[in-house]
Amino acid sequence: MLYAVIPAGGSGTRLWPLSRADHPKFLHPLTGSAASLLQATVERLEPLAPAERTYVVTGRSHATAVARQLPHLPDGNILIEPSARDSCAAIGLAAAVIARRDPRAVMGAFPADHLVRDREAFVSTVREAITGAERGLLMTVGITPTRPETGFGYLRRGAGSGSVRPVEEFTEKPAYDLAVSYVDSGRYLWNAGMFVWRVDVFLGELARQQPVLHAGLERIAVAWDTDEQDDVLDEVWPTLPRISVDYAVMEGAAGASLVGTVPGDFGWSDVGDFHTLAEALPADAAGNVVVGAVADDKAEVILRDSTGTVVVPLSGRLVAALGVSDLVVVDTPDALLICPRSRAQDVKQLVDELRELGETAYV
Amino acid sequence: MLYAVIPAGGSGTRLWPLSRADHPKFLHPLTGSAASLLQATVERLEPLAPAERTYVVTGRSHATAVARQLPHLPDGNILIEPSARDSCAAIGLAAAVIARRDPRAVMGAFPADHLVRDREAFVSTVREAITGAERGLLMTVGITPTRPETGFGYLRRGAGSGSVRPVEEFTEKPAYDLAVSYVDSGRYLWNAGMFVWRVDVFLGELARQQPVLHAGLERIAVAWDTDEQDDVLDEVWPTLPRISVDYAVMEGAAGASLVGTVPGDFGWSDVGDFHTLAEALPADAAGNVVVGAVADDKAEVILRDSTGTVVVPLSGRLVAALGVSDLVVVDTPDALLICPRSRAQDVKQLVDELRELGETAYV
Repeated sequence: MLYAVIPAGGSGTRLWPLSRADHPKFLHPLTGSAASLLQATVERLEPLAPAERTYVVTGRSHATAVARQLPHLPDGNILIEPSARDSCAAIGLAAAVIARRDPRAVMGAFPADHLVRDREAFVSTVREAITGAERGLLMTVGITPTRPETGFGYLRRGAGSGSVRPVEEFTEKPAYDLAVSYVDSGRYLWNAGMFVWRVDVFLGELARQQPVLHAGLERIAVAWDTDEQDDVLDEVWPTLPRISVDYAVMEGAAGASLVGTVPGDFGWSDVGDFHTLAEALPADAAGNVVVGAVADDKAEVILRDSTGTVVVPLSGRLVAALGVSDLVVVDTPDALLICPRSRAQDVKQLVDELRELGETAYV
Repeated sequence: MLYAVIPAGGSGTRLWPLSRADHPKFLHPLTGSAASLLQATVERLEPLAPAERTYVVTGRSHATAVARQLPHLPDGNILIEPSARDSCAAIGLAAAVIARRDPRAVMGAFPADHLVRDREAFVSTVREAITGAERGLLMTVGITPTRPETGFGYLRRGAGSGSVRPVEEFTEKPAYDLAVSYVDSGRYLWNAGMFVWRVDVFLGELARQQPVLHAGLERIAVAWDTDEQDDVLDEVWPTLPRISVDYAVMEGAAGASLVGTVPGDFGWSDVGDFHTLAEALPADAAGNVVVGAVADDKAEVILRDSTGTVVVPLSGRLVAALGVSDLVVVDTPDALLICPRSRAQDVKQLVDELRELGETAYV
């Protein structure tokens, strides 16, 4: 019995010009099928949480798009944040609302914009995390590292037997050499922002560590689904501290030996940029990846003498590449991006430049 | 007193997807200004030939576009070929029509799809060629070679004083080593397909070397501007031999010591492909060239950390490149091309592939 909570926020700037402020990453079909990242996230949780126990937390501007992509979700399961106040407020709102419905519910939080290749392994891993959560731990689903990635946070696993182990420490994005030693040690997992816990345990830790945030969320939860919901939300929400759930609760809880983790090895990707996205999707014999093209799409892609190239053909136009290697080509109706895969992380610089130029229509 | 004849044919396959069968190279603004190659050709000839002595020979499908681009040309000066029958028929038609109007006229033929950077030098060179033509020579305007180009034909200049010299030989596209020796010798010029001659001399050589072609063109010219024009054209034109003016007349005339040449050094380019086009246009400090963007155009081009890159932004969309070098990016409303500058000549392979795929809408 799991309640699935899917925070759907963040614009995914490094996936520009596909991802925009008004049509962010999680709404796009970056899964190798016609499903959006959000839809794929809901689908992979279905064996654990049916629609009536699946919640999405999202911003006002994306609520209608979320509702349309997930028509089978009850209206009340789309929780709309009046403004973005970081992950602790978003996840905490869902926890407080679910706790009113089921005080000892186990909930899992799973970002709306990640890719998972092996769904069965994912479900097994989450089931293991649920056993830890039922024992009163705040569980993280860690990712077994596949490379010394410096862009992620890491979890240090404690000793023990079985897959559920204590988390001794949360560590920030490490320098490269440190990341290499983390991976070599076998004791570290990537912190992928996936959490599983009993709502009573989480809310207890929130009350202990973040009493203001806890009290605000409780006030909102009491008013939830009453005539006063909107008034209370509008009054209280803007006063909530902006803080991530890692800083607000998990690090302190780890110090109190309340955090556990299970290692996940299910072909995970955070789809951080077009290079990472392409690595998570099937390539042709020459290493080229065409993202988002479906059989009945009008878009044609011709890749002649080209290797390792990522094409995102979303304008319906013909995209023809000749003799290029390891390039990213993203073709949208109003903007085109071309960069080497090695520069895919720097796409956010272009978005910054567009903002500075006042070209807000493109960002 | 010059009659300017501008053959406007050829689709410019290596400039795909800009150049298409129904909107060929010469109609496009590839000049660094808003003028099309055709308009720029007419403009650079204006000091030598006013509108009433300027003729364009073009195909049926391009006649209206030509007429709209050149509104000041008399209707009768746009000669429409019923079908493409190579350069001797096109140029010969103009020569025969002009000869009916002015039997000893000097005419010059200048392709519609070339670029000239130094217009004054061009006009001076053509004036020199006119002096040779008035003396009864079939003059070519040769181009002083700037590199051992293997894609062009060459003219071997004979000895003599002054700029007008005999042409001893027309040579085909040479192998690289031979091209190097040609350039080093100082005796060779590129054959750029620009000719200046008295129409009576040209038609005399045509009658001698190509009696069938000559007779056919004479029949058409006699009927020109009469009620019978269209009937005669439809009857005779399909019977005319398909042959270039070089093979049909110039090579044989050179053997009879009737061909002269002047060297031209006026920043000429045949705009053969996007690399060549970019070389002929001004680049920014990083060697990037944006083609066809005019000040009031909506198209934005952002080139960040990019060098030597050629962008043709013709869809009105934002084109953003990050960290790329020596790339060609051609953005049109229905098709996008990306290739290295070094592969620009091979773009025609893509067009062939599209034809094989039956994607005729794109070619």
